[in-house]
Amino acid sequence: MPIKTGRVVAVSDFVCRNPNYDADAQAMFAAQAFMQNLKGALTISELGHAQITAPFLESSSQQHGFFHGGVVGALADNAMGCSAFTLFEPGDHILTVEYKVNLLAPADGDIILAKGWVVKSGKTLTVTQGEIFVEKNGNRKLCATATGTMMRMTKS
Amino acid sequence: MPIKTGRVVAVSDFVCRNPNYDADAQAMFAAQAFMQNLKGALTISELGHAQITAPFLESSSQQHGFFHGGVVGALADNAMGCSAFTLFEPGDHILTVEYKVNLLAPADGDIILAKGWVVKSGKTLTVTQGEIFVEKNGNRKLCATATGTMMRMTKS
Amino acid sequence: MPIKTGRVVAVSDFVCRNPNYDADAQAMFAAQAFMQNLKGALTISELGHAQITAPFLESSSQQHGFFHGGVVGALADNAMGCSAFTLFEPGDHILTVEYKVNLLAPADGDIILAKGWVVKSGKTLTVTQGEIFVEKNGNRKLCATATGTMMRMTKS
Amino acid sequence: MPIKTGRVVAVSDFVCRNPNYDADAQAMFAAQAFMQNLKGALTISELGHAQITAPFLESSSQQHGFFHGGVVGALADNAMGCSAFTLFEPGDHILTVEYKVNLLAPADGDIILAKGWVVKSGKTLTVTQGEIFVEKNGNRKLCATATGTMMRMTKS
Repeated sequence: MPIKTGRVVAVSDFVCRNPNYDADAQAMFAAQAFMQNLKGALTISELGHAQITAPFLESSSQQHGFFHGGVVGALADNAMGCSAFTLFEPGDHILTVEYKVNLLAPADGDIILAKGWVVKSGKTLTVTQGEIFVEKNGNRKLCATATGTMMRMTKS
Repeated sequence: MPIKTGRVVAVSDFVCRNPNYDADAQAMFAAQAFMQNLKGALTISELGHAQITAPFLESSSQQHGFFHGGVVGALADNAMGCSAFTLFEPGDHILTVEYKVNLLAPADGDIILAKGWVVKSGKTLTVTQGEIFVEKNGNRKLCATATGTMMRMTKS
Repeated sequence: MPIKTGRVVAVSDFVCRNPNYDADAQAMFAAQAFMQNLKGALTISELGHAQITAPFLESSSQQHGFFHGGVVGALADNAMGCSAFTLFEPGDHILTVEYKVNLLAPADGDIILAKGWVVKSGKTLTVTQGEIFVEKNGNRKLCATATGTMMRMTKS
Repeated sequence: MPIKTGRVVAVSDFVCRNPNYDADAQAMFAAQAFMQNLKGALTISELGHAQITAPFLESSSQQHGFFHGGVVGALADNAMGCSAFTLFEPGDHILTVEYKVNLLAPADGDIILAKGWVVKSGKTLTVTQGEIFVEKNGNRKLCATATGTMMRMTKS
């Protein structure tokens, strides 16, 4: 299957405000029982980016035996939120203001992979995007795209 | 807390194409293992409307002990999808094209209640809206609004 | 054409923080040359609600002689923004964070009418919704729904 | 201002169903009087991609002298729609089902540039994305991102 590169997004360099951003994001993720329910695992590859993977589980499925659309959306929201969180200051909390998911293809796979990244990092709001893939027998397929707006809540 | 009625949406009367819409929607819902994971229950009160309730579970929660935003979105998507499904013909399948959730308040409750209804029923696409409430100690609070676009897949 | 009332949104009573909200919203609207381009007129019927009407103009049309979808979205965004603005403090500015439009039917009319209202009024963010109608020969038709997130910028 | 490449989207190769896609897209664009109102110009650089530019006009502005958010959204919608249209068959029509715009920065520029491209091309629905830039004194700035769902209407 030939693949063509579509575009390159130019984004401003990100500023690191929390040297422990990876560990802090992992701690926030680990505190979400719903993510354990889905057996999700978080990877922070770099500042402003996050990736969540989860295996196919019967308990995450819909009527045709694929990942449920609600699971796709939940992982997208969380990957986008974690990507935003990496740019916050230590002690800040995060709220999702809104998220939108476009489901492009059935989420038919052994594993699901949700990527989130920051498009615009503001003082209060962070705008993020996401792409969600499924892998089956080693083939990766884009099954959804997402956008999300995240809010930074300062500790004080 | 004083409540004020905001608006009334005028919608065209819905046309019933499937006399067994309630039973068929319940069967589709029951086949979704992820909904059993969340202990969701579907109620079809009338044509073009659907409601899903789910109890608070540790396994549905986020880091502050509230319903996870991904659970809020998943129930909203499903309630909107079921509302659209009631207007389909027997044997039709449904796909979510896209959905969007605005999180208005922490989903802090003993129970969550997602309502979905049809705004525009077309031959191929159905546009829906949703409102998601949490109840705590008998007090109901609006915690999210949603919109969704659903696609009808004919059996043939 | 029989019309059925769909639902009633329960919203908290709004708090007025600016006794001159109507005049201030009108002044903000009047300063937008693009609204004059579309010959839009703003009506603030009550706190947290706004309505913009515009006549059909050749210069607002698309290839089939209807209002352009971009005009539908622009009026929806603005009606939602004005509804949020009525709840701000004197001197506050407003920014649209994001808006989404669902186009339900061709915007075929002599006049277009965009209604916006506040769903949740927060300190920083205001969540709004909108409905856009066209009228032709006295018949009103819902042609689009919208949601928008607005940000309050304090004068200081 | 240092710029960093963010990501590369992998998309399937597009299939050309209309050898005259560029001329046909230009004809559709030229028939939209609202685009002439904004002095928009369409460029189809390649299959599945479209770009609209427009100069700053007083009549396209909001209260601070920037491009109006409604103009940003209208151009985004149209660039996304034209990108989808290039993949249609001769004689097909296009409808926008829904579009969403995130406004990231004030659209303060001498010229605005809306790019749209196809993420998923289906038989009935096409999912698109967009980015909108403003240029001032030769400096280009990302001012908005967008997503849109387009519907193909066959001539028969």
